[in-house]
Amino acid sequence: MGDKPVWEPIGSSFIQHYYQLFGNDRTQLSAVYIDASCLTWEGQQFQGKAAIVEKLSSLPFQKIQHSLMVQDHQPIPDSFIISMVVGQLKADEDPIMGFHQMFLLKNIQVAWVCTDDMFRLALHNFG
Amino acid sequence: MGDKPVWEPIGSSFIQHYYQLFGNDRTQLSAVYIDASCLTWEGQQFQGKAAIVEKLSSLPFQKIQHSLMVQDHQPIPDSFIISMVVGQLKADEDPIMGFHQMFLLKNIQVAWVCTDDMFRLALHNFG
Repeated sequence: MGDKPVWEPIGSSFIQHYYQLFGNDRTQLSAVYIDASCLTWEGQQFQGKAAIVEKLSSLPFQKIQHSLMVQDHQPIPDSFIISMVVGQLKADEDPIMGFHQMFLLKNIQVAWVCTDDMFRLALHNFG
Repeated sequence: MGDKPVWEPIGSSFIQHYYQLFGNDRTQLSAVYIDASCLTWEGQQFQGKAAIVEKLSSLPFQKIQHSLMVQDHQPIPDSFIISMVVGQLKADEDPIMGFHQMFLLKNIQVAWVCTDDMFRLALHNFG
């Protein structure tokens, strides 16, 4: 995995930026996806920046707050990083729920974008 | 994402095979990793088939049973598939625990192997 884990600050910066955009203005998430990106959200698949941002923007809550408990990052050949997050979220006045999400990040033209994203609420562990 | 989701049966077959080996004889997991594989297990990093299998084989339980609740699969360019699993496990007589695990699979010489693997117990959602 190389000598210095340079991928860890890159991955954690991306994730901080992602959830900040998610909490402030989901339409701004278009900055982190590309047209080739794929999202699987609670089992539903979406492809492309426009479809992904439309899905995320239309989720039925006004405000959401994420608390990240742990995050793991691994480097992948060809300028990829894979990141997995375990956390809690609170949407509007709903009870706090656990979630996990993974991101495949790619370095394209000096920016890190998300090419693949998967999200699941943790309640499936106990379904 | 292509017309036919051929990656779904490939991903789910791999996962079925993986947890079968994990439950029956963890030393046999050497069949699904390669020397370039990376594992992050509860935040600890291991690289290479030998180090990964040594870690998994030395986990402190005799028997383990996994129940998979949901699994998601996405194709990645260059013969990769990314899979995320949410489930429950029971190790020896310990209480049932939720877990999530992701696998990056690569097709090498007609076999699908795991190049990247991340595992977390779901209790971090509630830590």
